[in-house]
Amino acid sequence: MAQILKLTSPADFIGKQGAGVISFGSGQPDLPPPQEAFAGIDLKRDLRYGLIQGEIKLREALSKEYPGSTAENFVITNGASEALDLIFRSWGKGGKVLLPRPYYYSYPPIVEMAGMVPVYTDLVKGRIDIEDFKKKAGGCKAVLINSPSNPTGRVEAIETLKEIEKITQKLGIYVVSDEVYKDLIYERENYPIQGDHVITVNSFSKTYCMCGVRVGYLWSSDKKVVEDICEMKTHTSMNTNLVGQDMALSAMKAPKEYIQAQQKIWRGRRDFIYKGLTDLGFDLWKPEGAFYVLPKCKNAREFLTLLYQDFKVITYLGAWFGAPDSIRLSYALDVKQIEEGLTRIKDAMKKVSVL
Amino acid sequence: MAQILKLTSPADFIGKQGAGVISFGSGQPDLPPPQEAFAGIDLKRDLRYGLIQGEIKLREALSKEYPGSTAENFVITNGASEALDLIFRSWGKGGKVLLPRPYYYSYPPIVEMAGMVPVYTDLVKGRIDIEDFKKKAGGCKAVLINSPSNPTGRVEAIETLKEIEKITQKLGIYVVSDEVYKDLIYERENYPIQGDHVITVNSFSKTYCMCGVRVGYLWSSDKKVVEDICEMKTHTSMNTNLVGQDMALSAMKAPKEYIQAQQKIWRGRRDFIYKGLTDLGFDLWKPEGAFYVLPKCKNAREFLTLLYQDFKVITYLGAWFGAPDSIRLSYALDVKQIEEGLTRIKDAMKKVSVL
Repeated sequence: MAQILKLTSPADFIGKQGAGVISFGSGQPDLPPPQEAFAGIDLKRDLRYGLIQGEIKLREALSKEYPGSTAENFVITNGASEALDLIFRSWGKGGKVLLPRPYYYSYPPIVEMAGMVPVYTDLVKGRIDIEDFKKKAGGCKAVLINSPSNPTGRVEAIETLKEIEKITQKLGIYVVSDEVYKDLIYERENYPIQGDHVITVNSFSKTYCMCGVRVGYLWSSDKKVVEDICEMKTHTSMNTNLVGQDMALSAMKAPKEYIQAQQKIWRGRRDFIYKGLTDLGFDLWKPEGAFYVLPKCKNAREFLTLLYQDFKVITYLGAWFGAPDSIRLSYALDVKQIEEGLTRIKDAMKKVSVL
Repeated sequence: MAQILKLTSPADFIGKQGAGVISFGSGQPDLPPPQEAFAGIDLKRDLRYGLIQGEIKLREALSKEYPGSTAENFVITNGASEALDLIFRSWGKGGKVLLPRPYYYSYPPIVEMAGMVPVYTDLVKGRIDIEDFKKKAGGCKAVLINSPSNPTGRVEAIETLKEIEKITQKLGIYVVSDEVYKDLIYERENYPIQGDHVITVNSFSKTYCMCGVRVGYLWSSDKKVVEDICEMKTHTSMNTNLVGQDMALSAMKAPKEYIQAQQKIWRGRRDFIYKGLTDLGFDLWKPEGAFYVLPKCKNAREFLTLLYQDFKVITYLGAWFGAPDSIRLSYALDVKQIEEGLTRIKDAMKKVSVL
């Protein structure tokens, strides 16, 4: 039996992707950014401080994607991570935040670091149970949703999103909607949740395959929310890096076909890994967006360790995402690699009881 | 008499530098970055997530500037601002932090947002009063020093810095040393404060005139400090933007003459503005580094407002930096502009009693 490693978070795998390793770990596209991202970028531009809120041209371009918006409704941030961090911090201490569980692994620490308390509503078949959601949202200061979801790959029904709009508006609480996978939905058009009480978090990382450039943003129609966040960012990081913002603006010029071509690739990989894992006997929800699967898995830590040590396959522990007895796989790999990874998983299943 | 504007922080002046305005406001070089910063930058590099701690090549290059260091001692951040924010947040709630006053205007909010309490030791003739420092450091979890200082332009004596090393070591508390102006000292070589209990904060912004690129870093020989900060940054912003890090690494190839030429320019401007303000009758400390002066000024808010509204001159209120009855001027302007600004200040002095 493999030695149980003290793997406590995805960060423990960073830098461990050596030769021959198949990594179902890291949640980022393996595809290249669009050529447009590089076109016309002038490094010798004015490199003095930019506006804390973000470059006006980039915010104007974004406003065209958000009907009824202006550049004033956006704050450009160092990725969606910073947007989330600033939002919760800007509310000061205290109060509960409702999180659907399983959740993106940074959500609980971000909420807790802001001095707030996470409470959970468990997904049913990978979707929000609106009755439980309603019950628990009362008494919260905010809810944080993520559709398409990391780690489940599930997309909430439009009716559910509209229901959430109504429930939270009635309660007078905020909805923070992390929509970083909005352009990676296979089954339907995106539905951006709406309202004065909504703060949307987004990013150029997944849509344009430029995670390392670290440009994200938040949208809010509430002037006070935007002002408070800019005031905080003045002290915590100042403007978001200017070259990255230029690249983000350029990337937005990529034709719609670029995104459609990506979706096709992701859908093909989704079909392949879903069938592969199902054929191996795993019980899992079918992803409808993003690029993650979360199969149930007994002895998950032992299996993860065996896979890594003896089979050179990286997977993440479901427990890191609030989903014990499961493992999370990202399928941001070409189909050949996914196939090889599944073969190794099949072999490893002979040594540990996982089903 | 001019209407008193509700100017509450430097951010209120952002975007207000129109035609004909002389700005002694913003604290950033007006000079261009070295040509080296742009050489060999390949935007089409791998743009997937980088290491949270920062690019290894950049950290290795930095380790050569810090004797006895390795790449493991550094964390690359979104400017010195993020470094400071992460340091204080990583310590969790509670505890006092000693700040010399006048201070950089973001220090108190950064300390307070981390759930800690700032306490102050007042500078005497622009320098740390070591007896008062010693008395107040007892009972603190950390001290935060800044030499050369924004807003005073003063540089602490090497003996003072060595004394601070000893006092804090004996007390078993941290020294956070913000040394972003370390390459802009006119009077002597830099003395980097040393010890296992020291965390140094630095930046490429001022040395290489690239504030908007947002690349800074922290140094610590304490493995736990580095690990805790990286763990936090995993959730709050992930890696620092990769193109910016490449530019920072390239900028480090600039010859020493680049920095020397800058110092000469800054010294010339310092001499000019110091003489000019002294000739006008202002009482001020002579800057020995950075690019700020902090003359005493009665009716400071009224004068600032008059200067801005009637004379198109931007200055900052000393009160924002913990120095009431003074104004802060940055001399990051060419001498011709400084001269014109001083003329306008002279004219404005006829309307408000400031001396």
